[in-house]
Amino acid sequence: MKPHLLPEDIEAFLHGKIPVTKAMEIRVESYEDDRLVITAPLAANHNHLGTAFGGSLAAIATLAGYALLWLELGDKEAHIVIRSSKVSYDRPVRGEIRAVCVRPAESTLTRFRKNYERSGKGRIKLGVTIVEEDNVCVDFEGIYVAIR
Amino acid sequence: MKPHLLPEDIEAFLHGKIPVTKAMEIRVESYEDDRLVITAPLAANHNHLGTAFGGSLAAIATLAGYALLWLELGDKEAHIVIRSSKVSYDRPVRGEIRAVCVRPAESTLTRFRKNYERSGKGRIKLGVTIVEEDNVCVDFEGIYVAIR
Repeated sequence: MKPHLLPEDIEAFLHGKIPVTKAMEIRVESYEDDRLVITAPLAANHNHLGTAFGGSLAAIATLAGYALLWLELGDKEAHIVIRSSKVSYDRPVRGEIRAVCVRPAESTLTRFRKNYERSGKGRIKLGVTIVEEDNVCVDFEGIYVAIR
Repeated sequence: MKPHLLPEDIEAFLHGKIPVTKAMEIRVESYEDDRLVITAPLAANHNHLGTAFGGSLAAIATLAGYALLWLELGDKEAHIVIRSSKVSYDRPVRGEIRAVCVRPAESTLTRFRKNYERSGKGRIKLGVTIVEEDNVCVDFEGIYVAIR
């Protein structure tokens, strides 16, 4: 199922399809077995206090979940959308923004893919954290839906 | 308390302090007695499906709450940050993104300002909706904190 795309291919796809990701200077750092890591520089995403803007943090976390799901589903024709999200901003981000979306358990992914294949619709909860120097600064949870 | 700023002044402040608001081409449509309205074009904020990107919607709603609070507090030295948020994406946004932050009840604002003045810290819940042709497409709730 899993497409073997390089970080630069994923990045080009996101920049091409979602222009704000280019404006935010989002980079795909890595997509390895259990996680997708997306980064963005503070310079393009700071707020009035010189720390990361909460809106950029929410957007980057939303994107990380979406991109992980798109990669895991491996169906380029799928319509993936976010249904709801919750974000907890626990510490300010003072440097590079680094969002980590950990792949859900295999059983969760299997159930999601089965529903998608059987009914043309799958729903899944994904968690994303934004971390700085081993501290979780932002904790995001999103419910995503894939529709064929 | 309330500063009498024109929409273009608020817009210039946001573009100057939070660069991504410029990249997203955010405009301040109006700031009247009971609400602040912020817009952004779909062209700068679309996703892979040609509708508004969920991350842009979250960012614009976050900004609307922040800007309303900054205006209502009227203290340019205040540090206003978002503590947590919840977003429900109910319908896709197919045209201009239009975020409406309604001013909370006077009693809520008074309590917030009193706490801020007495202890140097105030906390408030703000709601923002993103509407299109009288339909609520996105429902956002954010907890914001102002620190002197």
